[in-house]
Amino acid sequence: MTTSEHAFSDAERLAVYRAIHERRDMRHFSGGVVADDMLQRLLQAAHHAPSVGFMQPWRFIRVRSRPLRESLHALVEEERVLTAQALGEREDAFMKLKVQGVLDAAEVLVVALPPGREQHVFGRRTLPEMDLASSACAIQNMWLAARAEGLGMGWVSIFCPLQLAGLMGMPDGSRPMAILCLGPVDAFYGQPMLQTEKWAQRADLADLVFEDCWGQSPGDAGD
Amino acid sequence: MTTSEHAFSDAERLAVYRAIHERRDMRHFSGGVVADDMLQRLLQAAHHAPSVGFMQPWRFIRVRSRPLRESLHALVEEERVLTAQALGEREDAFMKLKVQGVLDAAEVLVVALPPGREQHVFGRRTLPEMDLASSACAIQNMWLAARAEGLGMGWVSIFCPLQLAGLMGMPDGSRPMAILCLGPVDAFYGQPMLQTEKWAQRADLADLVFEDCWGQSPGDAGD
Repeated sequence: MTTSEHAFSDAERLAVYRAIHERRDMRHFSGGVVADDMLQRLLQAAHHAPSVGFMQPWRFIRVRSRPLRESLHALVEEERVLTAQALGEREDAFMKLKVQGVLDAAEVLVVALPPGREQHVFGRRTLPEMDLASSACAIQNMWLAARAEGLGMGWVSIFCPLQLAGLMGMPDGSRPMAILCLGPVDAFYGQPMLQTEKWAQRADLADLVFEDCWGQSPGDAGD
Repeated sequence: MTTSEHAFSDAERLAVYRAIHERRDMRHFSGGVVADDMLQRLLQAAHHAPSVGFMQPWRFIRVRSRPLRESLHALVEEERVLTAQALGEREDAFMKLKVQGVLDAAEVLVVALPPGREQHVFGRRTLPEMDLASSACAIQNMWLAARAEGLGMGWVSIFCPLQLAGLMGMPDGSRPMAILCLGPVDAFYGQPMLQTEKWAQRADLADLVFEDCWGQSPGDAGD
């Protein structure tokens, strides 16, 4: 059994890697619209993510109301200031980063975990946070599909979850995890925006991969 | 500005959706090997995931030692029994699901969050779990790339994190989140294994998407 039997064609493989490498966390949007069928494809992509015990813990609230969107933006702006203060010496650099995308993007969606998750024990007895991990995989699917469709997406996590849950009428036990901005963009960033802004640099992969033991580089072992 | 300017070609778009829809959480592996350059491509795909504040919180420990792998398998088997007991009436159904993949897969990797994450406040002041979400996106990138390469992957979260951290020599403050099984497979499941096993069915997407308010279906609004 070789791996190639199940492998995609070279062109298909390259397309998958292209989506992975050209996807960006977008903060600048150019308005416009997302066609209904395209939005459905993106949501189906999310819905076909893996999930722990196949629990499918993702819920999406599409924000159609303009006043509601403005309330979301105000919530994000409030937390942006609090985060900047918490950052101390990096406050100024952080404050340069805008959250205008929440107002400008063609679509805004809130992603949340549903109530009743405690019933799902499969794969979560010792790691209850695997529901969040599954929903992150769903968002990543949507992000890659959006890139292939030519749409930008940004994941905003700068908000007070309790206030956001209140704004969206979420039941007790549910938990918001993302405000997604989605829509046409003038241009995709050539590299992560935070790298361009010199907030952080991409690490060397070799520093993140160990062998058999934390901190042990490949080839370090004595044998 | 239309979206099509940045869209992939139709063939490329379809390849991205193919990876998303044909990716499976694999539990059956056929041994073999993963070529070094292929493994590097998969790890680079993971490393190009989005991360909160560009913190890149993913660390990978490749398990080369056979005795270490057997210890991992024993750890998973121990938690499998405890999970089955916690499931009560579904215990028997759960016990039919095997964790043999940890022994059979060509490669096993432990994914973990590093210590020192509390320094990273950007996007995490109110949602500290966004580091886990970022690393889940990295795993999802790797999963899709593996599918395109014709390799199966499974995410095992059935283990005691403290014991796993001990086995891998992980420092205080780090946190393991996945045992990944990766390698050639005889066949990809046509649908999620847990659906085939009648553990759960795929939900109707329409039941997971609301508009403006939790529980409100599109078109429900009075206006």
